[in-house]
Amino acid sequence: MTTFGQLFVPAPFLEAVSDGAWVQAMLDAEAALARAEADAGVIPAEAATAIVEKGRAELFDASALAEEGRAAANPAEPLVRALRKEVGGEAADSVHYGATSQDIVDTAAMLVSRRSLELVLAELNRAAAAVAALAETHRSTPMAGRTLLQQAVPTTFGLKAAGWLVSILEAREGLERIRDERLAVQLGGAAGTLSALGERGPEVLRLFARELVLAEPVVPWHTDRTRIAQLGGALATAAGLLVKIGLDVILLAQTEVSEVREAAGGASSTMPHKQNPVASLRARACARPVDGHASVLSAALEQEHERAAGAWQAEGPALSEALAYTGGAAAAIAEAAEGLEVDAERMRANLELTQGAVLSERVVFALADQLGRDKAAAIVGDALARSAQSGRDLGEELAADPEAGLDGVDLASLLDPATYLGSAEIFVDRALERFRESG
Amino acid sequence: MTTFGQLFVPAPFLEAVSDGAWVQAMLDAEAALARAEADAGVIPAEAATAIVEKGRAELFDASALAEEGRAAANPAEPLVRALRKEVGGEAADSVHYGATSQDIVDTAAMLVSRRSLELVLAELNRAAAAVAALAETHRSTPMAGRTLLQQAVPTTFGLKAAGWLVSILEAREGLERIRDERLAVQLGGAAGTLSALGERGPEVLRLFARELVLAEPVVPWHTDRTRIAQLGGALATAAGLLVKIGLDVILLAQTEVSEVREAAGGASSTMPHKQNPVASLRARACARPVDGHASVLSAALEQEHERAAGAWQAEGPALSEALAYTGGAAAAIAEAAEGLEVDAERMRANLELTQGAVLSERVVFALADQLGRDKAAAIVGDALARSAQSGRDLGEELAADPEAGLDGVDLASLLDPATYLGSAEIFVDRALERFRESG
Amino acid sequence: MTTFGQLFVPAPFLEAVSDGAWVQAMLDAEAALARAEADAGVIPAEAATAIVEKGRAELFDASALAEEGRAAANPAEPLVRALRKEVGGEAADSVHYGATSQDIVDTAAMLVSRRSLELVLAELNRAAAAVAALAETHRSTPMAGRTLLQQAVPTTFGLKAAGWLVSILEAREGLERIRDERLAVQLGGAAGTLSALGERGPEVLRLFARELVLAEPVVPWHTDRTRIAQLGGALATAAGLLVKIGLDVILLAQTEVSEVREAAGGASSTMPHKQNPVASLRARACARPVDGHASVLSAALEQEHERAAGAWQAEGPALSEALAYTGGAAAAIAEAAEGLEVDAERMRANLELTQGAVLSERVVFALADQLGRDKAAAIVGDALARSAQSGRDLGEELAADPEAGLDGVDLASLLDPATYLGSAEIFVDRALERFRESG
Amino acid sequence: MTTFGQLFVPAPFLEAVSDGAWVQAMLDAEAALARAEADAGVIPAEAATAIVEKGRAELFDASALAEEGRAAANPAEPLVRALRKEVGGEAADSVHYGATSQDIVDTAAMLVSRRSLELVLAELNRAAAAVAALAETHRSTPMAGRTLLQQAVPTTFGLKAAGWLVSILEAREGLERIRDERLAVQLGGAAGTLSALGERGPEVLRLFARELVLAEPVVPWHTDRTRIAQLGGALATAAGLLVKIGLDVILLAQTEVSEVREAAGGASSTMPHKQNPVASLRARACARPVDGHASVLSAALEQEHERAAGAWQAEGPALSEALAYTGGAAAAIAEAAEGLEVDAERMRANLELTQGAVLSERVVFALADQLGRDKAAAIVGDALARSAQSGRDLGEELAADPEAGLDGVDLASLLDPATYLGSAEIFVDRALERFRESG
Repeated sequence: MTTFGQLFVPAPFLEAVSDGAWVQAMLDAEAALARAEADAGVIPAEAATAIVEKGRAELFDASALAEEGRAAANPAEPLVRALRKEVGGEAADSVHYGATSQDIVDTAAMLVSRRSLELVLAELNRAAAAVAALAETHRSTPMAGRTLLQQAVPTTFGLKAAGWLVSILEAREGLERIRDERLAVQLGGAAGTLSALGERGPEVLRLFARELVLAEPVVPWHTDRTRIAQLGGALATAAGLLVKIGLDVILLAQTEVSEVREAAGGASSTMPHKQNPVASLRARACARPVDGHASVLSAALEQEHERAAGAWQAEGPALSEALAYTGGAAAAIAEAAEGLEVDAERMRANLELTQGAVLSERVVFALADQLGRDKAAAIVGDALARSAQSGRDLGEELAADPEAGLDGVDLASLLDPATYLGSAEIFVDRALERFRESG
Repeated sequence: MTTFGQLFVPAPFLEAVSDGAWVQAMLDAEAALARAEADAGVIPAEAATAIVEKGRAELFDASALAEEGRAAANPAEPLVRALRKEVGGEAADSVHYGATSQDIVDTAAMLVSRRSLELVLAELNRAAAAVAALAETHRSTPMAGRTLLQQAVPTTFGLKAAGWLVSILEAREGLERIRDERLAVQLGGAAGTLSALGERGPEVLRLFARELVLAEPVVPWHTDRTRIAQLGGALATAAGLLVKIGLDVILLAQTEVSEVREAAGGASSTMPHKQNPVASLRARACARPVDGHASVLSAALEQEHERAAGAWQAEGPALSEALAYTGGAAAAIAEAAEGLEVDAERMRANLELTQGAVLSERVVFALADQLGRDKAAAIVGDALARSAQSGRDLGEELAADPEAGLDGVDLASLLDPATYLGSAEIFVDRALERFRESG
Repeated sequence: MTTFGQLFVPAPFLEAVSDGAWVQAMLDAEAALARAEADAGVIPAEAATAIVEKGRAELFDASALAEEGRAAANPAEPLVRALRKEVGGEAADSVHYGATSQDIVDTAAMLVSRRSLELVLAELNRAAAAVAALAETHRSTPMAGRTLLQQAVPTTFGLKAAGWLVSILEAREGLERIRDERLAVQLGGAAGTLSALGERGPEVLRLFARELVLAEPVVPWHTDRTRIAQLGGALATAAGLLVKIGLDVILLAQTEVSEVREAAGGASSTMPHKQNPVASLRARACARPVDGHASVLSAALEQEHERAAGAWQAEGPALSEALAYTGGAAAAIAEAAEGLEVDAERMRANLELTQGAVLSERVVFALADQLGRDKAAAIVGDALARSAQSGRDLGEELAADPEAGLDGVDLASLLDPATYLGSAEIFVDRALERFRESG
Repeated sequence: MTTFGQLFVPAPFLEAVSDGAWVQAMLDAEAALARAEADAGVIPAEAATAIVEKGRAELFDASALAEEGRAAANPAEPLVRALRKEVGGEAADSVHYGATSQDIVDTAAMLVSRRSLELVLAELNRAAAAVAALAETHRSTPMAGRTLLQQAVPTTFGLKAAGWLVSILEAREGLERIRDERLAVQLGGAAGTLSALGERGPEVLRLFARELVLAEPVVPWHTDRTRIAQLGGALATAAGLLVKIGLDVILLAQTEVSEVREAAGGASSTMPHKQNPVASLRARACARPVDGHASVLSAALEQEHERAAGAWQAEGPALSEALAYTGGAAAAIAEAAEGLEVDAERMRANLELTQGAVLSERVVFALADQLGRDKAAAIVGDALARSAQSGRDLGEELAADPEAGLDGVDLASLLDPATYLGSAEIFVDRALERFRESG
């Protein structure tokens, strides 16, 4: 991603997947490998010390690495050569001992992912907290529930926010599981047998994983890309959930709806009245590429033999962008939610727009007790048709219909949306409880 | 999917996602809802009995449902009407009480998914067992490890199979987790508040989940499609892993490689010599659409308000095909693996093709002890260049080079691929152990 | 696609890509090949006659073909065997002479595509005509132009419809170009050399193309899948354009906007007031899978050597569904547009919602002549802020500001949206002209 | 894309879509707009001159633009402010007169695309020339035609290259058509009516297009994204075709096949014998993301009303990367093809591997004249089975079978692959002719 990536993605996310971050992660992998091999008696301890010392990204030039790496189509190959030069002397022969470029790139990918996931999770936490506060505050704020973008029956804004909350918790859980269970070192040597390490292969693998606090795989995973594909999938799911929230905000912020607005709504210089839901828009713009990149990662599962010719190499950029854009989406939704201005009065006013029709389900059920479902539906349907013509509300039209059998029916309270919220508030409580439990 | 789907997908998978299976699953959802509501005192027990009795797919005509369902763009709406007609009398009013079409379609999707997942998992188990047997049998069978489709260093066919095995176990685990944790009933009523059930909403929800042995969600998930997207992702990952195995088989079965062949290799009528790896090919053909469908499911996370206008409706067909095609891929790989004929002699012969070059890594490491890494690499490089010209093997060329410093070096055993397998056999054991533990 | 496909896709589209349609298309290809070969003197004329006679789909059982075709993973292989049996005698040896299964499947794909494209184009024409009528009728009907879903400046509904119209014409042109230029016979024999036809290969190829009125390719295109990928791309573009129209309709039909409604709006049994924009919804549901399938077709460009092991076989189902779903989207938009009820009064009323703010751009430009752009924008911005507080409209607030310099400014006409339509009507005329020219 | 993008994509392609290139393209759009408006009498000529003078990217800081652009989620909005500041004085009010940010970004996208397409086309031309030379040189070089990766019948390397050539010509044509017909200016003002330009809108539009030598659209295309989606599709098709060539090279370069090798094959430091087909690998790595990005562009067809909230903003980065990566793929294939070393002897040797079986189709046809197709196939099938057991070749086994009816059959010439090439050479000539005609 370029500098213009900042239009959508905050700088820390771009930094976490930058070339510099990758170089440092590759150096961290080399350093950890050296330490592990020293501990296992494969290379001298002093060599490891020298390698660790030179493992600082600022000593290397990403641009030169990129140019030299073209011949191998990976950045680790030139980095190893450069690191050997930096280390110098006999110790140079201990650099990258028994490893292959893919070991370093794959392990670095895990480190880059871990660092990025921490940032993404922090934003999800922010978003969750903000959304939970909205759910709590608006637990009982009536608004129109809309299906197929038509007003259906009342709900509460709290329940809408509770739905957002649960989805964020689910996305978070999915990413945490990847972080905790699926990030693992890769070490296989030239073709996955750790041939050059002789009998000490498994021991080095174990120590390497311990050094980096990453999982130790059962077998090298150089051509089993499940971990990467699952990470891509979890990111796409997270981004998708976030964009649903953004879409709801955008729809609620429409001029004709005006039930919410983003505090920091972007203004337009020639149209100073506009209050654009820019954060939500940014979330949507961010989520789109994540899907595309997750596709690339999923397609990359198909790898030839012991190292793929193309599919593997395509993963790095796709993974970087998927991580950064998911972060951008999370940050945008956190921002939108934290500053969301909710207009409860307008929600109420919009519920009046249908002149009672938004409560027709309730009326049908109420009349059905006496008249049976079909007749009740017919009578309400007729009343709605008349209401649309006359401009009178549903209650008036029903009252005027002798067949409606309204004896003993309290039409006024039947047509009060605030008393037809079903289990909305209970569901809000359940969501908040889950949020609190989830830590 | 049509009848021609059977070209790639065995009939049981097609059956499990057929229109008939969906109708039955929707009826199962209606029956369970009726029972739950009777238990909760919402509808009469006799009504529930009548509904359960009529809940048999053969009483309904999928084609008529499809035609009538166009007006609502979902199959549950006409099914509810038809079911009411079948049930008749007062009990008809108890059908689908307080539910919305989406509740039924979504819950049915979970039932269809559970049934399909069982079939997929059974095929994965078959594949895992077959692949484990290959790993065990060929634990120490040397073959060329190939990176970028070039022979790199020796490995064993057992280790290749062990890699396949671990990936199958991972895919299985991913699908099992979805099945066990993420399949849940959906019940929200018109807009997610269970408005028509008054105070008994949560109780009905709990009983509904119990009836179907599905999870009870914290809040209705009508517009939180994480569950579906995660299922799509897990299917895509599974299909992708299977296709990696299929690709390896296809590559190993090439005329020029001939290290394996499928027992049931498809023959050609005009070219009777061909032994096409048809099962592996079918696995690949199956995996492709899964990715496309998973994309549709991931994009469907973006849903408007309390019911999406299009994104929700697009999920059903995509989910059905993703399930069936993943099943097709799993069945194909199980078939390929169970009947795989492995030619260990040809593997050995192919290792000879490079005249020792496939062991150049080993030789470099061996010479490096005395000469240092750079000089060792240079000497071996020169010898390889001469070998390519002369037709003599690497050993002869090295022996002819006085600078190679071969004193005390046992070239013959150095150039024996069977003794340069690194940790291959240990990794095989680790994979088999994990397989046994995983049950 | 199954029977339930009819929920979204009209039956003729499903029929055009059904197994039966494919069988007939394959038989048409065999018949044309036989005729071409008879004309070229490769097979006896009587044999060709026999083959043509038996080339009727009803003589063959799709289900049996599917089952027998598993071993070859394609439907042509068993069909050829069955056709030979039907033809019988010596003529049987002339069936499929010198061809390979892929020749038949690929040529059939072109025939299926041509038939389906005719249906799609007919629906696009219907849609274009309906949309053109809307553009004409509402050439000057003012409505809010909305950017980022916020009212921005006035436009006309005619211009919105004109934009839809141009996009339909573009989609149509893209599909027509494919139909006219890119549908070609495939004939290459076992590996693309037409080896079995000796010197008569090119002649047979030419006659084969003439028989089917398809293009003759420069070389066999068995592994050059550009034609298919381009068709997939053109379908995805068409579906995408249609869904933009559907989305606009859905947004305009929202309860709070109510500027249009679909005549055949789907009703809900428990919520009789709802007027769901079901046709537009169906268009969106149809467009989603087209993108997924186009992806499969694009990924299938990567084919191994002279016939791909998996990628080729995956094309057929993806192509069928892409064709049918695009047809479904086109039919849905034609239906939505033909019956679209436009509420010009409501459009006008919605333009009043912002109390003049929707004309702030115009006011800024008007004041800028005297005050300069920055000062004008500041004054209007302040007035808008006051208006939001006071409930007075923009005109009143400006009139109350002595710095606004309104001398000689006719505020009333400045704030009349009907006179701030820019080139909207001219653009409508241009679009209609292009429509008429396009035939 | 980052610096590491150079691992796969040559610097000029990265440069052509860099932030700097976008800034310059936006400035070019502003300058052209100013000139057009001056010519139309909308703004003073001196203002236009001042704007043109300041339209140099080096005057602006991409990083600052990105940061300031976050509030509007697009880069044109801050650029316009910065340009106004640079221009200063009264002329500042003439900057961007009557335009909206999207007009500038969309027009800039067309300029960036045109410049990038020129680079892509140049590489395609290089690749076409190199591939044409291969086709010509190896017009009659026999090699195995391989279907499903099994040797099927002989073909020539020239025909394989001819197939590559035709696909490149098709891809080129697709991109040229986009460049020539579909790149158009966008100018609509705030919501597509050119409201602020009064009656001079169409005139300014016409002059704007003339200034930039881009097409003039019938109506503003701000929410009709066909052009972008079609460009994405054409890029994906081009990249896909290129990757088919790369895949063939990689497969032919396998150690066990060794029929070609890349001159600049990447070496491995620890495995000096490897000759990795790195250019082809790079082409594959490049093609993968293009598909993902084209998907994003296709999904972006669904835009809300007069400016989309997210879909539009997501296009820029996707388009940039699709252009650059397609360029990377084209450059890689040009490199691979120009330096391809073809081993005709090895091709011939590989044809011998099957001991005559690769000619079994020919033998079946030859015997069928006397014996009928079925009996001929059975006899050849038996002979092949015996050959596989005995190690004798097909000819010997047939000669030993008295039922084979070989009287008058010249087995030796029947089993010579060089005489069973069908129309391969004619097809090569046709492809070369088309190449020459295409200029």
